[in-house]
Amino acid sequence: MAPLTVDSLNPSIKKVQYAVRGELAIKSEEYRVKLKHGETLPFKKVISSNIGNPQQKGLDQPPITFTRQVAALMEWPELAKLAPDVFPKDVIARAAELYEEIGSIGAYSHSQGVPFIRENVAKFIEQRDGYPSNPGHIFLTGGASAGVSLLISMLINSPKSGILIPIPQYPLYTATLAQHSGVALSYYLDESREWSTSIEAIEEALAKARQDGVEPKALVIINPGNPTGALLDEATMEKLVHLCERHSLVLLADEVYQINLHHADTHPFTSFKKIVCRLNSPVPLVSFHSISKGVSGECGRRGGYFECTNFSSDIIAMIYKMVSVGLCPPLAGQIGVDSMVRPPRPNDESYPLWKKETDTIHAALAQRTQVMAERLNKLPGVSCVDSPGALYLYPQIHLPAKAIDAAKKAGKEPDAFYALALLDETGICVVPGSGFGQKEGEYHYRLTCLCPGVEEYVGALERFHLGFIEKYGGL
Amino acid sequence: MAPLTVDSLNPSIKKVQYAVRGELAIKSEEYRVKLKHGETLPFKKVISSNIGNPQQKGLDQPPITFTRQVAALMEWPELAKLAPDVFPKDVIARAAELYEEIGSIGAYSHSQGVPFIRENVAKFIEQRDGYPSNPGHIFLTGGASAGVSLLISMLINSPKSGILIPIPQYPLYTATLAQHSGVALSYYLDESREWSTSIEAIEEALAKARQDGVEPKALVIINPGNPTGALLDEATMEKLVHLCERHSLVLLADEVYQINLHHADTHPFTSFKKIVCRLNSPVPLVSFHSISKGVSGECGRRGGYFECTNFSSDIIAMIYKMVSVGLCPPLAGQIGVDSMVRPPRPNDESYPLWKKETDTIHAALAQRTQVMAERLNKLPGVSCVDSPGALYLYPQIHLPAKAIDAAKKAGKEPDAFYALALLDETGICVVPGSGFGQKEGEYHYRLTCLCPGVEEYVGALERFHLGFIEKYGGL
Repeated sequence: MAPLTVDSLNPSIKKVQYAVRGELAIKSEEYRVKLKHGETLPFKKVISSNIGNPQQKGLDQPPITFTRQVAALMEWPELAKLAPDVFPKDVIARAAELYEEIGSIGAYSHSQGVPFIRENVAKFIEQRDGYPSNPGHIFLTGGASAGVSLLISMLINSPKSGILIPIPQYPLYTATLAQHSGVALSYYLDESREWSTSIEAIEEALAKARQDGVEPKALVIINPGNPTGALLDEATMEKLVHLCERHSLVLLADEVYQINLHHADTHPFTSFKKIVCRLNSPVPLVSFHSISKGVSGECGRRGGYFECTNFSSDIIAMIYKMVSVGLCPPLAGQIGVDSMVRPPRPNDESYPLWKKETDTIHAALAQRTQVMAERLNKLPGVSCVDSPGALYLYPQIHLPAKAIDAAKKAGKEPDAFYALALLDETGICVVPGSGFGQKEGEYHYRLTCLCPGVEEYVGALERFHLGFIEKYGGL
Repeated sequence: MAPLTVDSLNPSIKKVQYAVRGELAIKSEEYRVKLKHGETLPFKKVISSNIGNPQQKGLDQPPITFTRQVAALMEWPELAKLAPDVFPKDVIARAAELYEEIGSIGAYSHSQGVPFIRENVAKFIEQRDGYPSNPGHIFLTGGASAGVSLLISMLINSPKSGILIPIPQYPLYTATLAQHSGVALSYYLDESREWSTSIEAIEEALAKARQDGVEPKALVIINPGNPTGALLDEATMEKLVHLCERHSLVLLADEVYQINLHHADTHPFTSFKKIVCRLNSPVPLVSFHSISKGVSGECGRRGGYFECTNFSSDIIAMIYKMVSVGLCPPLAGQIGVDSMVRPPRPNDESYPLWKKETDTIHAALAQRTQVMAERLNKLPGVSCVDSPGALYLYPQIHLPAKAIDAAKKAGKEPDAFYALALLDETGICVVPGSGFGQKEGEYHYRLTCLCPGVEEYVGALERFHLGFIEKYGGL
């Protein structure tokens, strides 16, 4: 008997799907290797628009200098003596303060994260929301995903436990639910209203869950949305909190794009923490944040946090026990969180550069998003909500009947078929809508708005799209 | 109905136990905070001997300068231009090479780890063992624990799946099995023979599993042992591989202490990869390694790898899918792995310092382990195998009957009762044997051999032990 076959593995593992790094991403890696080895392809470089990874090669969004200078000094503290003139004074002071609190970043920290950094996170939250935050109920994590995965694994207490997931969703949620044998209870976002969240759609999903004998445990909200970029208004947020109260749901608020706002005047961000506090609601809330997005874009550090509100101390102790088995989050990520929640202040030597760098990133992202949405909307058969937040666009594409037939013959979802052709022809890697979920018969794809050469990038998208439509007999 | 109570959580979570960061560790943290706030306690500092964390405050094992210099340049590449004289030439060249391959360490890498670093790991393994290694079957991880946890979660395919675990064991294994509802199949190590591994004990555990209707999936071997420090000889390793063949088991080899050898002449390390290759065995093997131990001690970076041998490409694809949901291991950990597998060479500018630093760490650990074992063995009621490897001692303690009674009255395991008294009186935090597993009626504790002031440290242990025995009426 062979000891190890796919059929002998945990069956939940087989059900896990994660399209963001799936077939297309794997194929794009193969193309990258071929180009590196000098092979000739229809394109000169691979553009990884499948993933919000601002600092990757080819996009090269520069890191925030302050964050990296502090990190360099934490790596090798002697640098402050050996090359004192190279670092701004506030950076040297900041690193010295962190070293005093943490010691070596080569040591395990408290499993929940360095207490001093958690205090700084709490102050950041208090300043953002105007309500108190308890560092004892904050957990630093290796990116938001690690926290989401842990919470979902704890909440699912039987194969009949369900969690409400927006459709379209970031596939971490369905992947984690599949892994832990829980039920994804889908509620649809309203594309015709800028991907807004509807209380009725969630109530319908709850009614259906009850019919199916599934017990809903939690409601996931991604705000700003991924892949949609939509932003919730406060009135809707209040209704969502009341809905959680009515149905005894834990509210899982994925708020990692909270500062990626392209029209902050008309579409501002409000945290669920603020709404829950303002309503004096007893709803248990977990809010996730990350250094991978925002202007920091420090995906590779693996840093983030979640804050628990309305959690009893015995539940907090249980979460602590679970994170302690993994020892501690990466220290590079933890100090990245500290730099995110404590950026330079106006009188600091580092401030002008920090301000310039972050303003540039915000402006470029807003401008690219707008240009891309405009140009995609001009293409035949493409409609695209102009996202007010996050890093993505999620255009809907209408495909020729012949293309849909060809996709079926190839055993692919039509939008995956489209995305594979896009990759083969242009080197641009996007994620088909089937990876995020969509209504039956609709097709989308998600692409990031991170690519610097927007003209070249959108130009290639346009040429491909027109050629594809023509190849399959038009719309 | 309250939406969130301990009883509403996943019942597997409740069963998870992880003593290394359990009650004692939490209490020691409280003492540390009290001392920081100026409170008077019977001791002046807390000594965290509960965890192999060499660079923690109070122990302060210095990091390897080479590793940190490379890391500082990766954090802020401009440093090579701004302060070129501060860095050795080979460090600047190494960082430039890594930057060329990786780009920014703020970007997500390949989910399996940077391809170039995996190639370097493969070369390291080939040089160590003399057999080929496939970078495509190597996964970089956020420390060894993350890999162990993933593999166990994939292998458990029903609540009647079991994994053979040595007793005593590192509690990550039982914690992960509890979390994923698998069965820990215990086999006992032989304390009377320097904690050696017995084929008969494993065969007995397998027979018992069959009686209980449990299907054994894998055999865990920790070599060098944790908490025992024992080293396997090659003859035993060959028998273990054959046992895995007979019983269709996957072999999970936790080899994170592979260079922590105190008597390398009489007790050398051989990898299971080498034995499996030499025997031309088809046994599926996973070997785990880490930058947290060895001489690197870079626990906070969260870096490590596992290599799969005799795994089919469809299983590798399944592992890739699972790690892709978590995006990628921390880049700080990945470059730490690179520095571990590619240290400076004799002609490099960094070599003399690297050699001095690593020799010092090896010598200090060997010397402390020996002194501590000798002195513990002289205490009444204490017997301690002089560990040839790893970072720990695991003394057996015979306790007075009155102490055992007092422990029962307090609702504690007797060795936990002893360890709590040790912490309260001396500030030394160890982990009771009940956290690792031991035979009924036996008591042990694990302590690390990392504390620099061995005289002060062992002196405190001795005084406490003698006082404890006397307090409870002698042996």
